Amino acid sequence: MPSEEGDTREVVTSLAKRRGFLWPSFELYGGMRGFYDYGPMGAALKRNIERFWLRLWVGEEGMIELDSALVNPREVFEASGHLEEFEDFVVSCADCDSSFRADHLLEGLHPNPDALSKEELAEELVVKGVTCPECGGGISEPASFNLMFATRAGPGEGREAYLRPETAQGIFVNFSHLYRLGRERLPFGVAQLGRGFRNEISPRQGIIRLREFNMAEVEAFFHPAKRQWSGDMRTYADTQLTLVPDGSDEVQVTLGEALEKGIMCNEALAYFVGVTQRFLVGVGVDPERLRFRQHLQTEMAHYASDCWDAEALLSYGWTELVGIADRGDFDLRRHHERSGQDLRVFVRYPEPQEMEVERLAPVHKELGPRFRGDAKAVAEALMEADASAVGDDGTATVTIPDGDGTRSVEVPAECFTLERKVEKVTGERVLPHVVEPSFGIDRITWTVLEHAYTQRTGEDGEAMTVLQLPPIVAPVNVGVFPLVTKDGLDIIAEQVDGRLRGAGLRTHYDGSGSIGRRYARADEAGIPFCITVDHQSREDDSVTIRWRDTQDQVRLPISHLVDSVKELSGLD
Amino acid sequence: MPSEEGDTREVVTSLAKRRGFLWPSFELYGGMRGFYDYGPMGAALKRNIERFWLRLWVGEEGMIELDSALVNPREVFEASGHLEEFEDFVVSCADCDSSFRADHLLEGLHPNPDALSKEELAEELVVKGVTCPECGGGISEPASFNLMFATRAGPGEGREAYLRPETAQGIFVNFSHLYRLGRERLPFGVAQLGRGFRNEISPRQGIIRLREFNMAEVEAFFHPAKRQWSGDMRTYADTQLTLVPDGSDEVQVTLGEALEKGIMCNEALAYFVGVTQRFLVGVGVDPERLRFRQHLQTEMAHYASDCWDAEALLSYGWTELVGIADRGDFDLRRHHERSGQDLRVFVRYPEPQEMEVERLAPVHKELGPRFRGDAKAVAEALMEADASAVGDDGTATVTIPDGDGTRSVEVPAECFTLERKVEKVTGERVLPHVVEPSFGIDRITWTVLEHAYTQRTGEDGEAMTVLQLPPIVAPVNVGVFPLVTKDGLDIIAEQVDGRLRGAGLRTHYDGSGSIGRRYARADEAGIPFCITVDHQSREDDSVTIRWRDTQDQVRLPISHLVDSVKELSGLD
Repeated sequence: MPSEEGDTREVVTSLAKRRGFLWPSFELYGGMRGFYDYGPMGAALKRNIERFWLRLWVGEEGMIELDSALVNPREVFEASGHLEEFEDFVVSCADCDSSFRADHLLEGLHPNPDALSKEELAEELVVKGVTCPECGGGISEPASFNLMFATRAGPGEGREAYLRPETAQGIFVNFSHLYRLGRERLPFGVAQLGRGFRNEISPRQGIIRLREFNMAEVEAFFHPAKRQWSGDMRTYADTQLTLVPDGSDEVQVTLGEALEKGIMCNEALAYFVGVTQRFLVGVGVDPERLRFRQHLQTEMAHYASDCWDAEALLSYGWTELVGIADRGDFDLRRHHERSGQDLRVFVRYPEPQEMEVERLAPVHKELGPRFRGDAKAVAEALMEADASAVGDDGTATVTIPDGDGTRSVEVPAECFTLERKVEKVTGERVLPHVVEPSFGIDRITWTVLEHAYTQRTGEDGEAMTVLQLPPIVAPVNVGVFPLVTKDGLDIIAEQVDGRLRGAGLRTHYDGSGSIGRRYARADEAGIPFCITVDHQSREDDSVTIRWRDTQDQVRLPISHLVDSVKELSGLD
Repeated sequence: MPSEEGDTREVVTSLAKRRGFLWPSFELYGGMRGFYDYGPMGAALKRNIERFWLRLWVGEEGMIELDSALVNPREVFEASGHLEEFEDFVVSCADCDSSFRADHLLEGLHPNPDALSKEELAEELVVKGVTCPECGGGISEPASFNLMFATRAGPGEGREAYLRPETAQGIFVNFSHLYRLGRERLPFGVAQLGRGFRNEISPRQGIIRLREFNMAEVEAFFHPAKRQWSGDMRTYADTQLTLVPDGSDEVQVTLGEALEKGIMCNEALAYFVGVTQRFLVGVGVDPERLRFRQHLQTEMAHYASDCWDAEALLSYGWTELVGIADRGDFDLRRHHERSGQDLRVFVRYPEPQEMEVERLAPVHKELGPRFRGDAKAVAEALMEADASAVGDDGTATVTIPDGDGTRSVEVPAECFTLERKVEKVTGERVLPHVVEPSFGIDRITWTVLEHAYTQRTGEDGEAMTVLQLPPIVAPVNVGVFPLVTKDGLDIIAEQVDGRLRGAGLRTHYDGSGSIGRRYARADEAGIPFCITVDHQSREDDSVTIRWRDTQDQVRLPISHLVDSVKELSGLD
């Protein structure tokens, strides 16, 4: 790795820890890899990033929100495919007992090791003669390792459960509630912020690859034939993007051009790319170091049919911050099938249509003896069903009431006949398709810090660090300094500080050291504006306000400060 | 249980689900007890409650914030005592294999079953002849069951880890970082919001007893001899409280009186009771159904020396919402001892004092052969230590540098002598003591819903539900209705709606049904204000605004709406 990037990373890592943004967890006990804690500045920065995210997706796009459980029972991940598919391959050393991700051992020896199957990895490791990086011993064959954290709920053996690897499944398993609360129409979207977990075999790269992380996900549900979001595409048509389509070269285009030229085909996905670009740049990702890259077929997740990643150029190289994937009906279909609950929604045609339909007609004399008390309910369910309820083996599966809930019943072929008839059909039941923008909040927070990091030369030639955080995400809105702590200036400054805090602004009061040192400390902490109370303040109730990035200063009346700082900061 | 309370609970539970506040998780797969999801309204209500909490504790009291990991390694809970002490007692039925909390089976048979030890429980279960409530079979002796969710981090056996049972330990293990970031002075406080986990044996009572829950905790650190917070006690001296001191009868007093009369002795704890009362009433807990109850000695947690619970009267009876405990130096001392890191802080005396001190003088000829290369470092550490470094067995424990960190070393008695001398001492190293206000956010959210629930009689005599949520926590700030969806009124209403949303307010646009029905729907959803665009709006750009609780209406110019709604809602 080039040393300049390594330097930036070290400097930002050290700054982040020193100023209370973030640091590795559990240092008191020697640390545990893959876990980070957010300090006072980091917690506020992260919350401000999340708040802007909510403003765009919930406030402007009208997504409805969910906050669902982190511990989920096995059934959820059986249906989602995570129990089978969410895995990496681990090799271990017989001599020193170290474990490694198999693909990591092939870095530099193979162009794309993380796309290899278990068998291909095994072969490559032998061909390349890979040994244990710790002790040089022989290594085992790759074994599958599921990346979910397992636990058990309840006493004794308890119930098998996992920490969720993504927030998305919480949305899918609540789909029926959410569709009702979204007023039963398509498209509609659900947004969720929260923790996710991934039991990495050997986490590296600081906060870029965590075992416990913060996510922000949107699941937008569409009619299968109409992937078009309700927002107005013209809003983002002129948004400038850097795109890397399907293994091709980088192109600079507007979103409108990308759609016209067919670089992007999925209109909903394209619209979300527009919102994502605005979000990332808004919180402080440098647009010069931001691009959207389309996934190659080989790297797509098990559920995705098209996917564009927002990637930022970091000291770690190009790094995924956001994945925007078309998941089709993969998830809803799996939950629909596994749970036995009908997750299809009824979509009305513009006008009723005459159609030939296949209906199931119950054969009552067969139903009675078989289903006894349930026979009437089964007959009704058969009449409401259509040919799609009949499986390959000729039996029909229908749902009948059972207590407060429902129950699935298998009905043998002799209990009904199939009849074709022409009916006026008012609509159809469909499984919605999903486009998912999924945001890695920790990586975004890191990127904001790394891209905000700059140096300027001070008056005496020394290098000064300036953290150019955008005002809307800066953890501290404004610094408040008395020029000197005498002549009553400190009393006025404390009043100014109290007034700003009373209006909900976060302030940093600093009365110690030279005013230059205090500006420097505020610059390093990313505070966008500093207010200084000087001797003139006693005479005309005015103060100076200084911009971090330009170092310009103007005088303002104290009575205007709250409104001015809020307006300058882009806060409501 | 009296049927009226049962009714209230059912009605609020059903309303909470229907309107998208909260509901049991994983209903698609038959549910998993002890888990709840927050829907669109609930997620916003909870966030607003948390925001007000941050405003008081971080904004006003100046606590610094932390957001630490949920998955923690074993060492943390060995030190905290949770591995040993955080347990309930489970009995199981040999016939039907059901499990129960032993103390639950004694409810109604013993006055205070949850205060019984394992042995006492065993005896009482036999004496009272308790059998399995499911099948009447015989039950096992009580067995200890640790209430932490266990998992493993990393491949293979991995590292033993647990989901945190409280956010507090994240603060304690980060104490050194946080003390530095808090500018190295006492008192100072740290605030943390986040999930906690408790693997209940058999969760009951809906959202009151969850396995996964949301907490908000403050750890305030004090000099051991001075439990006095930096806030001005006069702020809360006149706050009216209902107190239940140490098993006595309820008293109505001001906080000032409670301190004067010695009902409360701990000034810091009392101040936090004041802030807590203001917080709870501010978010909508009815002060008539709120009290602070002092813990009896027998019910105190393993770490606490004094504790007052804020309790709310709910359909479930009096229920703990907040615990304010004096944890002394229990946690820091345990981490100090287990980690081998010195967690004491240096507190300067007002003036240097001449004191007779016991110093360790190194005996170099003994140190050399024993400690070789480390001898010099050990000698220096001995000279800096005092008599408290010497244990009962006569050996001294000192800390020496080791690479980037430090290492603890045992020094035998023959390697040093104890010398008394008079020195000018500038201060002392102490382990801070802790007072902890710990808030159960889910229970508070539920209480806000239950206390907000009211009924009024509509014009035609029907019962109408009104959810009287305070405007600062209401998920939707304002409803926007066109009187009719013609004559351009809907266009004006949409513009008004867009303007309010653009200013960061959450709105509910509703154009369907009679205006009375729309008001009723808004009242049930807890929307505090509704704006109606009528024919007069076309003439003079004014609208009506209606108060949910009084049903009063006034006319306002559209240009003032944003400011008016924000001011009425108490939003910055």
